[in-house]
Amino acid sequence: MKTLILAGGKGTRLWPLSRELMPKQFIKIFNSSSLFQKTLERALVFSKPEEIFVVANREYKFRIIDDMKDLNIEIPKENVYLEPRARSTLPAIFWVLKTNSGKFAILPSDHFVEVNESYRNAFRAAEKLSENFLVTFGIKPTRPHTGYGYIKPGKGLGNGFIVDEFKEKPDLRKAEEFFKSGYLWNSGMFFFDSKIFIEEVKKLVPEIFDAFETHESIEEVYDKIPEMSVDYGILEKSNKVAVVPMDARWSDLGSFDSLYEISAKDEFGNAAIGEKPVSINSKNNLVVGQKLIATIGVEKLIIVDTEDALLVSRMGESEKVREIYKTLSARNDRRVVVHRTAFRPWGSYTVLEEGERYKIKRITIRPGKRLSLQRHYHRSEHWVVVKGTARVYYDGRETILRPGESTFIPAGVLHRLENPGKVDLEVIETQIGEYLEEDDIERIEDDYGRE
Amino acid sequence: MKTLILAGGKGTRLWPLSRELMPKQFIKIFNSSSLFQKTLERALVFSKPEEIFVVANREYKFRIIDDMKDLNIEIPKENVYLEPRARSTLPAIFWVLKTNSGKFAILPSDHFVEVNESYRNAFRAAEKLSENFLVTFGIKPTRPHTGYGYIKPGKGLGNGFIVDEFKEKPDLRKAEEFFKSGYLWNSGMFFFDSKIFIEEVKKLVPEIFDAFETHESIEEVYDKIPEMSVDYGILEKSNKVAVVPMDARWSDLGSFDSLYEISAKDEFGNAAIGEKPVSINSKNNLVVGQKLIATIGVEKLIIVDTEDALLVSRMGESEKVREIYKTLSARNDRRVVVHRTAFRPWGSYTVLEEGERYKIKRITIRPGKRLSLQRHYHRSEHWVVVKGTARVYYDGRETILRPGESTFIPAGVLHRLENPGKVDLEVIETQIGEYLEEDDIERIEDDYGRE
Repeated sequence: MKTLILAGGKGTRLWPLSRELMPKQFIKIFNSSSLFQKTLERALVFSKPEEIFVVANREYKFRIIDDMKDLNIEIPKENVYLEPRARSTLPAIFWVLKTNSGKFAILPSDHFVEVNESYRNAFRAAEKLSENFLVTFGIKPTRPHTGYGYIKPGKGLGNGFIVDEFKEKPDLRKAEEFFKSGYLWNSGMFFFDSKIFIEEVKKLVPEIFDAFETHESIEEVYDKIPEMSVDYGILEKSNKVAVVPMDARWSDLGSFDSLYEISAKDEFGNAAIGEKPVSINSKNNLVVGQKLIATIGVEKLIIVDTEDALLVSRMGESEKVREIYKTLSARNDRRVVVHRTAFRPWGSYTVLEEGERYKIKRITIRPGKRLSLQRHYHRSEHWVVVKGTARVYYDGRETILRPGESTFIPAGVLHRLENPGKVDLEVIETQIGEYLEEDDIERIEDDYGRE
Repeated sequence: MKTLILAGGKGTRLWPLSRELMPKQFIKIFNSSSLFQKTLERALVFSKPEEIFVVANREYKFRIIDDMKDLNIEIPKENVYLEPRARSTLPAIFWVLKTNSGKFAILPSDHFVEVNESYRNAFRAAEKLSENFLVTFGIKPTRPHTGYGYIKPGKGLGNGFIVDEFKEKPDLRKAEEFFKSGYLWNSGMFFFDSKIFIEEVKKLVPEIFDAFETHESIEEVYDKIPEMSVDYGILEKSNKVAVVPMDARWSDLGSFDSLYEISAKDEFGNAAIGEKPVSINSKNNLVVGQKLIATIGVEKLIIVDTEDALLVSRMGESEKVREIYKTLSARNDRRVVVHRTAFRPWGSYTVLEEGERYKIKRITIRPGKRLSLQRHYHRSEHWVVVKGTARVYYDGRETILRPGESTFIPAGVLHRLENPGKVDLEVIETQIGEYLEEDDIERIEDDYGRE
């Protein structure tokens, strides 16, 4: 059984935890695992590493590689499909299934799912049904939720049902009706046989089928095709769709409200991720942060603290984070795009402080990686190694630096920083100059094609 | 007219903005001025610099000196009375008035007061009345506040009244009665003639009067005397107490609730100190912080963010910060004592990051100041100058470093860092070693007597 992980989501609704360049599937909220890593672990329940595929936006390439490396999971390089732009789930799935035949479990990478007996049974049932049907998984609702789409099951098929109808997110009255009538939550997980799926795309969305037939470059194909979800393009139109019920804890984690729902709570209904808060007379709150957070007399609040942004929202309204996001985007506020920590192909850096004419960064370089051969015209840089071993190229020379050792790179001098070792290299960089933005960089040579 | 500023308050109720070693009177909440600085400016309305006195705990010596220097206000060194321990207001005032005769305006340094015509007239009236009375100032109430003490005015004395009675903080019913009956808020500001005050202390609190007669050291005197407020010890007992009404905006800033009360608000009743928050559907909140803060659907909240601690409290309950404070103190949590920025006689330092075997600090050294001649046994230090000019003593040698220049101090080597210049010196220090606490320091010589 093959598994395709959909890892392209932007997940802006968990801002400020998530950012454009660090979407929700890659942030480490659950005991220092990311949702993408949890999904990889779920993929391994049924598939061997070489049977696992990932499709995502190019921007996330190094997030995917790093997350796999952390888990010591190696899937073949050619199984990672990197999209030149976001076109929703239909093109993503089609691209992978068109080039790899077989039966595919298809998993979103940014949901929470409990793997229990029902989960395992559902996938086994779906595998059989997939010989004749495009299979979806329907979660048994625990309450009349208004935030999820519903599936109306029709005629029985043994371990599943024909899908009678897909229902959009309902209002509360309708949700209660759906809940009573045995409708299921639309989970976003699928089970497709590539042959049936490709036939259905050819029939129902020929413009996408045809675009992939041209044998143009993937950039050209993606330029041409429309943005379309598999739900809208195929499942709501095809008459070959079945649903397999699943009785497992599940959440799409579409907002902090749903994060609160699946979190462990204390006797006062308070959930916390990070240092345990000091709370007086406070109930039913979600508190997320890496520092001391104290609450007094507050109820049903969502408090999410990060280094450069803090969110305080009434529980039940956290979906409006989207509005905050839009407001900030319209202002070109960088705090919707990146954290203080920015990721690079070679590792990451965190801005510790910016002052007048200086900037301080902690730079982490992964084992065996190196930055580009580069120079800056407006700044000099001091490097102090605090962990690991650095190889420094400087004006044609080469030296090795160990923890406690340092070097100075004047403005205008060609240099390169490399981690030749087996553990992360950490360097504290103090930049001095009249202009300290990232675009003061001339790359002469780069392992990642960024010259 | 002389002015005595009482600057000894601990002001724990504005935690996490204030900390034990940085109490409320010294934090810069109002357009980068501290309340102590605002009080100095008010003192100058009636007194020349050489007529201004300050009394405070020894711990705050350098806070007082720095705040005066920032304003270019120089009061004689001998006018600053440094108490060996906190004994409340009666001993503090007695110590100063016993050693300096004359008429004293006495001002708390941690209140907010508007200086208007009524303020000025009240002090002029008090000066006259002080020939026969111990004068207090009573603020004209704007509402039946339950958080303040009240004064019942009696027989008229021209521009003031005999005090009939002092009333503790009332419940709401009583507060309404006081409000209707023309009672005044007890402001904590006084006007005393030293002669009358000393006579009253001799009569009413002989144990304090006698303690100061022994000619023992001030440490011994303070060891002996009880903690006592001037209100409890003198004003509530003496029959020579008058009150002068004052019609000015005033607050004791005893909690974030009162900070909200005096703050400017937008059309939705939101007050902010720091970057303007992004708010959706949020009303009547106080938001304090130096980063991006977003609120959704919240009302009557107090949100106070600092680098290492965040407070979220329901408006009206912020006095319970005291309980948070107690909980943390009981755990020996340093975050009630200091900010990430710690103050030293020579300036300050901010911990930018602590990692395994390394610590990064930004160190600010005031012009003309220097750290002790010292050595560490467990850490080496890298210094990069980012602003100003440094003189570095290192193993018997001496060098000058300018912005962008750096040096390395290995463990065990005697060193000293000095700012010989006219502007602040800023240095980024990267410490490396197996033990990085502040107590790994051997001081050979120190300008501030800390060897």
